[in-house]
Amino acid sequence: MVRDIQDEQLDRLTGVLAAMSREAAAAIRGASAALFDADRAAAEAVVAGDVVLDRYRAEAEAMIPEVLVRHQPVASDLRLVVCALRIAASLERMGDLAVHIAKVVLMRHPVGVVPQQAAAVLSTMADAAARMADKAAVVLATRDQVDATQLGLDDDEVDAAEKRLLSLLVSGWPYGVESAIDLALVARYYERYADHAVNVARQVVFLVTGTIRL
Amino acid sequence: MVRDIQDEQLDRLTGVLAAMSREAAAAIRGASAALFDADRAAAEAVVAGDVVLDRYRAEAEAMIPEVLVRHQPVASDLRLVVCALRIAASLERMGDLAVHIAKVVLMRHPVGVVPQQAAAVLSTMADAAARMADKAAVVLATRDQVDATQLGLDDDEVDAAEKRLLSLLVSGWPYGVESAIDLALVARYYERYADHAVNVARQVVFLVTGTIRL
Repeated sequence: MVRDIQDEQLDRLTGVLAAMSREAAAAIRGASAALFDADRAAAEAVVAGDVVLDRYRAEAEAMIPEVLVRHQPVASDLRLVVCALRIAASLERMGDLAVHIAKVVLMRHPVGVVPQQAAAVLSTMADAAARMADKAAVVLATRDQVDATQLGLDDDEVDAAEKRLLSLLVSGWPYGVESAIDLALVARYYERYADHAVNVARQVVFLVTGTIRL
Repeated sequence: MVRDIQDEQLDRLTGVLAAMSREAAAAIRGASAALFDADRAAAEAVVAGDVVLDRYRAEAEAMIPEVLVRHQPVASDLRLVVCALRIAASLERMGDLAVHIAKVVLMRHPVGVVPQQAAAVLSTMADAAARMADKAAVVLATRDQVDATQLGLDDDEVDAAEKRLLSLLVSGWPYGVESAIDLALVARYYERYADHAVNVARQVVFLVTGTIRL
């Protein structure tokens, strides 16, 4: 019976983390739309919407005492808590990184940040990042290790695209240093976003292989 | 008596976090020395030494179950755990950011990364970052809120210096796009490092104002 109550509380915690992963995916899609279309309203929506992820993270952390205190925790429960807190931290940070991209858009608006030459490689990064957030949401829901491994492949794609972009920028980039710095930073934000998505999946795998139910 | 044992365990946890803050300070000093002197050995030492912070973080996390399980935790203990985990995560990340700076040095070696024109503003960032790590260590040891507030002022200095550097880079930077991107990224690493130092202090203040002993 105690286990049932705890399961219910863990389901609520998992529910918050899954909701966070959907928000993080929406944030990067909004930021990418803003980036490629120089869309001020989309960028502002990403900035304004970030508070939702901050609140979810606080909500997830606020659940921890309840999950633990009321049911005499064992070590595996506590490992679960460490994982849940790491997952919440990564998802909140993914939202922050989407905001950073949106702010580059706002800083240059109405001028666009992405010249045609950089569009393909940045699209690769943007698509992979959004896909990874979707997969992280699936991994959270299914605890499927195959999905988690796939995120590592997506991450390799993001890293390779970042290298291609940087090569492009240092090989006679015709749009000046400011444009090159903007794009290098945007690429770094996508790359960090992807790393955090991998971390979410990795934490879930750790839970699964530790035979802990999340 | 139970409380005494728990105090001892919390002292051990605080001890690990304080050791982490000293490692994080040493890492950024090593990275800065490598950066300004194009010192390959110093850069390699920073990269090789990062495993120490990773281990400390794992050690801090491994202590949590012991702190909690053996003493029937109350909500304030659990808040403490959330703070301790955030502090450990920030300090580990500070080490990673020092490694990122060291890797830029290694990538360009034997060519230096910092032309004379950028030396002063980057030194400001490097000095402030190292100072902040020292203060974070003091805050961890003393739980002194005044120190914690001072880190906010140091952080403002880092942010202002980053803006000055970016202005410099986009105003006819004579060393090319690659150099500008390197420096913009290095500045970003210092800025993130400083943010994490502020976060460490903030978590300690939260603990103090929540009248929780860490």
